[in-house]
Amino acid sequence: MRILRIFVFLMLLTVAIGSENLNSHVFPRPLIIEYPENNENQLKDALKCTSWRFAVETNNLSPWKTIPEECADYVREYIVGPGYKMDIDRVSNEAGEYAKSVDLGDDGKDVWVFDVDETLLSNLPYYSDHGYGLEVFESVEFDKWVEKGMAPALGSSLKLYQEVLHLGFKVFLLTGRSERHRSVTVENLMNAGFHNWHKLVLRGSDDHGKTATTFKSERRNEMVEEGFRIVGNSGDQWSDLLGSSMSNRSFKLPNPIYYIP
Amino acid sequence: MRILRIFVFLMLLTVAIGSENLNSHVFPRPLIIEYPENNENQLKDALKCTSWRFAVETNNLSPWKTIPEECADYVREYIVGPGYKMDIDRVSNEAGEYAKSVDLGDDGKDVWVFDVDETLLSNLPYYSDHGYGLEVFESVEFDKWVEKGMAPALGSSLKLYQEVLHLGFKVFLLTGRSERHRSVTVENLMNAGFHNWHKLVLRGSDDHGKTATTFKSERRNEMVEEGFRIVGNSGDQWSDLLGSSMSNRSFKLPNPIYYIP
Repeated sequence: MRILRIFVFLMLLTVAIGSENLNSHVFPRPLIIEYPENNENQLKDALKCTSWRFAVETNNLSPWKTIPEECADYVREYIVGPGYKMDIDRVSNEAGEYAKSVDLGDDGKDVWVFDVDETLLSNLPYYSDHGYGLEVFESVEFDKWVEKGMAPALGSSLKLYQEVLHLGFKVFLLTGRSERHRSVTVENLMNAGFHNWHKLVLRGSDDHGKTATTFKSERRNEMVEEGFRIVGNSGDQWSDLLGSSMSNRSFKLPNPIYYIP
Repeated sequence: MRILRIFVFLMLLTVAIGSENLNSHVFPRPLIIEYPENNENQLKDALKCTSWRFAVETNNLSPWKTIPEECADYVREYIVGPGYKMDIDRVSNEAGEYAKSVDLGDDGKDVWVFDVDETLLSNLPYYSDHGYGLEVFESVEFDKWVEKGMAPALGSSLKLYQEVLHLGFKVFLLTGRSERHRSVTVENLMNAGFHNWHKLVLRGSDDHGKTATTFKSERRNEMVEEGFRIVGNSGDQWSDLLGSSMSNRSFKLPNPIYYIP
């Protein structure tokens, strides 16, 4: 009967191990049941932020000063992950295809307009220190960053820039930066690889207080009055693209970090 | 010894069950190791489609006739899942907040313009049978659907519609549908809950061949000439919103299924 006892012991042990295994299948059940709920909540939160971003990028929102707190992670992950770069690459490719398809006049009057910040130059080194839009914009702090002249190029924008120059477009840079930042902006642009623009237009003393839409429209009106044809326009803000003397085609780069009216 | 045999049998059975459980824990390991790679590819494919959708919704793309084949699942899941509805709800909420913030004149000249298809009425019952944009648009087939007059309301658009009416806006419906579909369109709109619009503008015989941007701009120009102030405009196509006599604020509803120039 000793052998029998040993077998009984072994059997019970095996049953115990077996049921532990069974339990380890059973135990996670409630977790598995809860997991989709967590997933569902995560999904809902993520969808709230994608809806918010859709509203941002389609210009559906009223002027806003900071990103929603609950979308802080979403925005950071979008920016530092592959999404932001892929979206920008796509814009530049579309713009490049369009640029190639245009029949340019031989009078040198075909223009491509570029905005500067978050279009040609990236201020992510600054915004990474300021919660990617979670903090209210501080112009004094931002000016210190601008004055360093260290903003890197957005790679695919540089490629587009060189393409449109090569195709024979005249390049106008139309930026909300102040005239007093002209030299540091020129230096920064050149160090980042941008050369041979036709004109760099900054906000003069008369332009402060105007919305970007108004300021940029006025300057585009002047271009048109001078006989230029605005064939393409690249900007990360709708205020770069909308208003009067709009371009034949506009290219909206992503920017979920800040809004300029 | 018979009892012993039964115990041995039971023990082996339990071991078998136990090790099946163990195996079912061990077996998925290689799958788990492969899973992140699949995830990464899935992530990249999904990001390609979100980049494509960003380009669609920001009007960065050249005129397109069908959605990319590789984004067929992405678009279907967006439409039938919670994303599409959440995005539309958000647009309607933003538009409603704006509408409430407007100081209306007491001359009854403040206008809200609505597009019809994919703005007030949903043609998803039609597009669900046609791959959600994967098939080239067939006007004859689509007309058959229109003539049924069965398109349901987009819920949050109906809510916005009623809100702006209640606030005192005059509602203009400006649609690319043909004048010959006037009566079925009126009937469909009314059955779906839309009433009391000021004017329903459809494409007349002179308007065929015009782009939607041109046709809709011309009709908005007429409104402005008649002294109306276009305060708000809701549409799922940029051709509903851009051009001349643009609204003070425009509200772009999502539409990754089709493009109208």
